[in-house]
Parts: sequence; structure tokens; C-alpha cells
Amino acid sequence: MLRAAAALLLNEGIKAVTFDRVAKAAGSSKMTLYKWWPSAGALAAEAFFAHSEHQLEFPDTGDIRADLTSQLRAFVRLITHADTGTAIAGLIGVAQTDPELSAAFSQHYSAPRRALALTVFERARDRGQLRGDIDLGILVDQLWGACYNRLLIPDAPLNEDYAIALVNNVLDGASTT
Amino acid sequence: MLRAAAALLLNEGIKAVTFDRVAKAAGSSKMTLYKWWPSAGALAAEAFFAHSEHQLEFPDTGDIRADLTSQLRAFVRLITHADTGTAIAGLIGVAQTDPELSAAFSQHYSAPRRALALTVFERARDRGQLRGDIDLGILVDQLWGACYNRLLIPDAPLNEDYAIALVNNVLDGASTT
Repeated sequence: MLRAAAALLLNEGIKAVTFDRVAKAAGSSKMTLYKWWPSAGALAAEAFFAHSEHQLEFPDTGDIRADLTSQLRAFVRLITHADTGTAIAGLIGVAQTDPELSAAFSQHYSAPRRALALTVFERARDRGQLRGDIDLGILVDQLWGACYNRLLIPDAPLNEDYAIALVNNVLDGASTT
Repeated sequence: MLRAAAALLLNEGIKAVTFDRVAKAAGSSKMTLYKWWPSAGALAAEAFFAHSEHQLEFPDTGDIRADLTSQLRAFVRLITHADTGTAIAGLIGVAQTDPELSAAFSQHYSAPRRALALTVFERARDRGQLRGDIDLGILVDQLWGACYNRLLIPDAPLNEDYAIALVNNVLDGASTT
């Protein structure tokens, strides 16, 4: 069922992921789907992230600038890829009016991803590479949130050069003083 | 028609903005709506921003840190307000599967807002307050995009304290070196 839902999401977009179509594609009953998932959107979110766990990998070589650049470049590749980018944008989009999808997106992806980034930031802070007096959680929004902004509100280009410049902006600051 | 669409969006959410319901509420014909707007989503976006032009105001006192803090605090108030926050999240959400809404959102709101921020950044750079060697466009994503991230993927709190800390993070940088 997860495989069928993921295929529908990637091939036809979030609107194709309905209990009807997943049941048909998986050869299961709609009753079974209703039993396990509170909404088709929640199923779509779980299905998508069940197959992209490796994307959560985060290098930790001891050099926070290199590790962030590497992670953000991989993230930009993921969210600008024709299939996965459209799928992620569709999931976040429908999540705005589907609380069950929103909860599944958080549980299966964004909350563990935020926690992982925080762990990496804390290690970098303990090594003396990140300042001790800032809220490290905000860095998550400044980095991945900035990329999502260009995905969801596409007024400016999103590519690996952007990821590189973004990491430097976030680490070095914009102010001259 | 714009007033009727805005009222439906604010009172009942983005899904209530259909040509049927707007025509009924405005006492106009659906044919007229089809003639002027390519989708109900595009009408919803134009309707919403027709009444929030003042939100585009951006103080320019000569102190970029104070001006950004003031602007970001007002922005966070707007997007965390029960009515307007849900409306903006709904517009961005549906924009992911409605290209006409996406285009209208950009035209009536996000593109002019980005241009205005860039103008303010360029003036601050010319005054020597922002570094001359960075891509100022990325700052837009680090600031407003970071706030949108907490609105759209609500894994962490969004409030005025967040706006204040965010501006300092962006200006001062996270790195110790």
C-alpha cells in the first residue's frame, strides 16, 4: 500500500493519492486503508518518506561549513528533482488544509530532520565552530526553510550555487559590524 | 467580487473560495468571474492582497537592524493571526497544485515584496551596514522564508521573539570565525 501510494504521488502528483486509487493499485480494500491511515494525505506522506530515509543522512566530518554545504546541496538536488520536488511541494501544500497530512509530514520527516540538524549544530558549537549565544533551532529555518521558500514561492532561482552561497551567508552573517 | 472572495477566504478558508460561492455572495454571474480570473485560486490571491497593501510598508530609518526587526515582527503578527495566517498558508498551499494561484500570489504579493526588500538591502549596503560581497536576494529567504517555514511546517514556535532573534542571527552570523 505504501509502495502504491508513493508511485501515485511521484508519477501523478498529490491529488492522485486517494484511498480509491491506492486500494485499486495495491489490490487492497478501502476499509483496510481507512483502518490504518486517518487521511489519504497522511498515507501519501508516510509512503513518500518510507522510501527516502537515506536523505536524512547528514555528514559529520568535524567541519560544519563543509558538512552543511554538502547536506544543503543534496537537499536542493532532492527538492528540485522533477518527481521528488513536486511531491514534497504537493505534500506541504495539501498539509495546509489537511491536519492529518501535516502531522504525518512532521512525524515521518520534518521533526526528526530538525532534531538531527540540531544534534549536528550542538556538536559544532561544542567544538567551538558555532556561537554559543544563539538559538540553534533558528538556523534550521535559515537554511532548509530558505530553500523551501524558493521551492514553494518560486520568485528566484534554486540550485546548488544557491545552497553554497546560503550556507556562507548563514555562517558569516550579513552585517559589516 | 474581490470583497466577496476575500471574506470567504478569511472566514471559511481557501477551499470555500469557488467561483460558485463567490458569484452567489457577490450577486454576479460565474461567466463574469471566468472572464476575469483564470482560477478561483487566482481570484482568492488577488482578493486577499488587494486589502493588505499596507502590509508591504517597510520602515527605512537608516538603521537596518531596527528596520528589519520592526518589519519582521509585523510580518510574524500577520502570519500568526488566526484569519490572515490561515489564509496565507492556504494560498501558498493551494498554489502548489494551482499554477494560476501561484502566478497571482507572485504578481500581487511575493515578487513586489521581494523587490522592496532588495531595495532596502541595497540602501543599507550603500550606507555600509550590509556586506558588499553577498547575494542580498538570499537574505529574503533567510528572513521571511524562515518565518514561512515555521508557519507551513509547524515543528517549532513562531512569535515576535523569534523574529527578533532571527534578525540578529541573519545579521551577525552563526560562525565564531
